[in-house]
Amino acid sequence: MLTCCVRHVLFRRLSALKASQISVTVRLTVMQCSTSSRQDLDQARTLLRLCADRYYISPGDANVELFQRGVSCRYGPLGTALRRNLLERWWHSVTRTTVQVFGIETQRCGKDTEADGPTPLRVVESQKLQEILLEKELSQEILIQKIQMVLQRSPSVRTNFLHGALEQFVPSLELVNRKLPFGLAQTGLCFQTSDGSGCPVEVTQTSLVWFCSARTSSQWLDHWTRQRLKWWRKFALSPSDFSSSDVPEAELEEAASRGMRIIYSFPWGQETLETLWNRGDTELLQTHKGDRSKLQCQDGRKSVPHVISVTASVDRGMMAFLFNSMQQIKKGNSKQKLQQRKVLKLHPVLAPVKVALDIGRGATVELRQVCEGLLQEFMEAKISVWPGYLETLPKTMEQLNAKYDEMGVLFTVVVSENTLESGLLQVRNRDTTIKEMIHVSEIKKFLLRYISAADNI
Amino acid sequence: MLTCCVRHVLFRRLSALKASQISVTVRLTVMQCSTSSRQDLDQARTLLRLCADRYYISPGDANVELFQRGVSCRYGPLGTALRRNLLERWWHSVTRTTVQVFGIETQRCGKDTEADGPTPLRVVESQKLQEILLEKELSQEILIQKIQMVLQRSPSVRTNFLHGALEQFVPSLELVNRKLPFGLAQTGLCFQTSDGSGCPVEVTQTSLVWFCSARTSSQWLDHWTRQRLKWWRKFALSPSDFSSSDVPEAELEEAASRGMRIIYSFPWGQETLETLWNRGDTELLQTHKGDRSKLQCQDGRKSVPHVISVTASVDRGMMAFLFNSMQQIKKGNSKQKLQQRKVLKLHPVLAPVKVALDIGRGATVELRQVCEGLLQEFMEAKISVWPGYLETLPKTMEQLNAKYDEMGVLFTVVVSENTLESGLLQVRNRDTTIKEMIHVSEIKKFLLRYISAADNI
Repeated sequence: MLTCCVRHVLFRRLSALKASQISVTVRLTVMQCSTSSRQDLDQARTLLRLCADRYYISPGDANVELFQRGVSCRYGPLGTALRRNLLERWWHSVTRTTVQVFGIETQRCGKDTEADGPTPLRVVESQKLQEILLEKELSQEILIQKIQMVLQRSPSVRTNFLHGALEQFVPSLELVNRKLPFGLAQTGLCFQTSDGSGCPVEVTQTSLVWFCSARTSSQWLDHWTRQRLKWWRKFALSPSDFSSSDVPEAELEEAASRGMRIIYSFPWGQETLETLWNRGDTELLQTHKGDRSKLQCQDGRKSVPHVISVTASVDRGMMAFLFNSMQQIKKGNSKQKLQQRKVLKLHPVLAPVKVALDIGRGATVELRQVCEGLLQEFMEAKISVWPGYLETLPKTMEQLNAKYDEMGVLFTVVVSENTLESGLLQVRNRDTTIKEMIHVSEIKKFLLRYISAADNI
Repeated sequence: MLTCCVRHVLFRRLSALKASQISVTVRLTVMQCSTSSRQDLDQARTLLRLCADRYYISPGDANVELFQRGVSCRYGPLGTALRRNLLERWWHSVTRTTVQVFGIETQRCGKDTEADGPTPLRVVESQKLQEILLEKELSQEILIQKIQMVLQRSPSVRTNFLHGALEQFVPSLELVNRKLPFGLAQTGLCFQTSDGSGCPVEVTQTSLVWFCSARTSSQWLDHWTRQRLKWWRKFALSPSDFSSSDVPEAELEEAASRGMRIIYSFPWGQETLETLWNRGDTELLQTHKGDRSKLQCQDGRKSVPHVISVTASVDRGMMAFLFNSMQQIKKGNSKQKLQQRKVLKLHPVLAPVKVALDIGRGATVELRQVCEGLLQEFMEAKISVWPGYLETLPKTMEQLNAKYDEMGVLFTVVVSENTLESGLLQVRNRDTTIKEMIHVSEIKKFLLRYISAADNI
């Protein structure tokens, strides 16, 4: 497993394989221990096409490629909701535990400090630079001086959350009455320098920076690795695709004495979702200019705390859950042709749409009124709902179900003539495909119970 | 009111006025129609100091100044939570309505397109530029060429959400079956060019871009102005400090035919929290290169929709709610000295901490166990709680209450010897300062009912 991480990355265009309405670029990570089979790549292509077709990401080759590289791309409404659900879950799992974790918010860009080291990325007012370049009668020396001045004044942008959290350590000490351990949580966007593409990219990250005594740091690293792996697996359809492993010594970051990774097995090989480092006290001391007295905590020995960083890529995590949840099921349809049913069996808590509302046969005006009422009720209960009844293009129930399965919609509720008479709704379950009749007055409670039951397993 | 917006901005150091532990920079916006009085400025100074002392923002002159300018700064745990609550409320109010609004997520940076116009800010790999500048034996011509190439390859960063939403209009059309009206919602960080400070700054924005027929656009502008003003006022202690006004013609943005502003009256004058523009169809056509057929909707006439943009500054909105909610109450204390009690009466829904848990006199170990149990129960119910019982420095109940009032904590729950015998907790209400006894088994329900009642008014 450890050697898997030394890997080559190669891009290959699969759009030539055709059979896809939109061409999809698939990035292959060739790994020493796994060879991607044709079937795996077909599955990858299918999933990426589904994501673009079903409003998870915006269509377009360039955007699909960004998505697949695990960096931020343009997300559609369903992708945006999934990303929000994932971030919210992470936040709750980290800040709402019995250990003390505080959420903070630092700036994306800021003035350089000595402790920062080299700042690879800066936000530059490009107009200013252009003006300098176009100035005539400037000697080369002065030109260079002027450009360097603009660069120095330009704020650097963050490439991770660590530095911001280390800075916030001192103001946070008061909060915890100088007692260890405690943590600082942050989520948001960071910029990363290009990996060959020649252009800085954005990534959505979650970051927990944990401060503990030197003595307990190794135990805490193990604790957080277990907790994080448990979290990823909790929402998985096949949990075994998520695993953890030690970072081999050759790949340790400079300051770190030990590292752990949480890994997902994509069809094209393994990729890292989350990285945990035991970083010691070097960077914390650097950030605060070696002022030990400011950093000392009450743990008996008045020592400087050690730092554990836990950083995940939300973009890649989203992709992992999407790959993990897709099932392709062969079934014979009414005309005896074999069809593949694709279902996105996202965890009920993560699924961006919990319920789709549609109308069957009957008096359209009255049925719509029932739908409007239900829509309102669901929204007030914070159940995300897809107003399928607004669609005017005629579709068969079979077509609708296929579409909703691909969207990962948990339940499809159909309001029909029967509803007006008996108050009963037809409710179809995405995972079992079983349809049952539930009374209008019971449906909200039913949905809430289903979602919270899945959450508490 | 209209002429108020033409204004000078002047910075003035108030730290010389002393009486403050940390010096606070106060920015004065001198407005034609209001003169800031000494008392108002005292109030501003008090609030800013309170925000830094009570974990809303990180201490430090530079950070307090950023906060007061209404741009993103380093927020402490309470500020982070308030910002999250505010963003969540905005998201719900906009996406969970009976009108169709979809959440999207576009990138912060990207490749230029023709329709973008000049791109003021770019993320540059500064190391690359430095290397070019240090290269010897380069002719000036080649130096300039090389720098321009690096600039061209560097991605531009967004200064607002409008362009991303206009791009997403076409893929979103399918979602709504080409039917108007609908909207695209986004929240997050944007960069803004410097306003004199010589450094680009970040702002947290909310953005709703609304697409409707030309015929109804003016009505929709009014609709959204009413809705947004109602939203701001819903969470206010004195709603009349929030108001709306037309943007005078001289200040209209180029593409806009009409504009509205939502304004807050700060102690130093009025500032804009949210701006609504009726933008017509020009920019939408530009973004899609004039391809009318791609943009046409089913509104009887197959016309290109008109665009209304609704953009708020979350950073400044937070500051408005903090100013709005602070009350200073004179009271005589036990030694007959007049004291000022400061209370942050934030709306129950926005308050970052709903309940503080403390222990009174009694067997510490057992009382702590009760606290741990309550903490767990509150966390599971998503009630944010402050574990005051972990504090080891002895404080009187009066000191604690003063601190929690300044933090805006809704309720203080005290577990004491009495609790072990009777199961009763002492519960103090921030706004009434009334203490009542509530049974351990009832407290969660009591808190949830209080918060949801405030939400439904």
